[in-house]
Amino acid sequence: MMQAKVKWTDGLQFVGESGSGHAIVMDADAEVGGTNTGVRPTELLLIGLGGCSGMDVASILQKKREQVTGVEVNVKGEKADEHPKKFTDIEVEFVVSGRNLSETAVKKAVDLSMEKYCSVKATLEGVAKIKYSYKIISV
Amino acid sequence: MMQAKVKWTDGLQFVGESGSGHAIVMDADAEVGGTNTGVRPTELLLIGLGGCSGMDVASILQKKREQVTGVEVNVKGEKADEHPKKFTDIEVEFVVSGRNLSETAVKKAVDLSMEKYCSVKATLEGVAKIKYSYKIISV
Repeated sequence: MMQAKVKWTDGLQFVGESGSGHAIVMDADAEVGGTNTGVRPTELLLIGLGGCSGMDVASILQKKREQVTGVEVNVKGEKADEHPKKFTDIEVEFVVSGRNLSETAVKKAVDLSMEKYCSVKATLEGVAKIKYSYKIISV
Repeated sequence: MMQAKVKWTDGLQFVGESGSGHAIVMDADAEVGGTNTGVRPTELLLIGLGGCSGMDVASILQKKREQVTGVEVNVKGEKADEHPKKFTDIEVEFVVSGRNLSETAVKKAVDLSMEKYCSVKATLEGVAKIKYSYKIISV
């Protein structure tokens, strides 16, 4: 069981506290009455998707003794125009940097995360179409 | 289009940066090789759900001139045992505090968020069953 507690602080600012003991400030855009002191709640889904899959890819490649020096995950999400404006399409781009990286290993790591391990991806894809790609940078 | 960029920093620690310009540290549990320096990516889904619906409830009740002094959203999520361990069941409890609060107004605000406005709820419920309840505290 995972838990979170979210408390209203001021305006549309809320502070969320995770079961693991970490706090996150959320706020809305000025357009809808917020003051942008924190992340949008919807952005957390994209950040969570990047973090979840990034952790998989970094740890799988390290276990394979690939010389990874960087992992970056760029996530873009499109929402429906009509309320409740759920996410309809999400694109995830993995940028993996390293020395003598095996493309096969990178592809395998990305596929394993996206098709087998990443909880966030598996939860979001009930509603959103999720596409992904990867890039390798030799350093 | 919403965006996020997530970067590997060290161990299983990643820093996510949202399109709105806010950074969040993520990390895994010690059990799976992390060092718990930040929130779990999966917890972000629960925090996002609490923030999204909390903002709706606070703003709807204020528009109705209810004398709200506090909104707290407690979120619990159950994940599947098998990979990819997607969320299967989520419970959201709203605790609304205030003076002379109309129960009808609170119920309406909670229902409007959960059934009509909250993007995070609408995205997660493609996969997870989401139940919700509310409590009113007179102050």
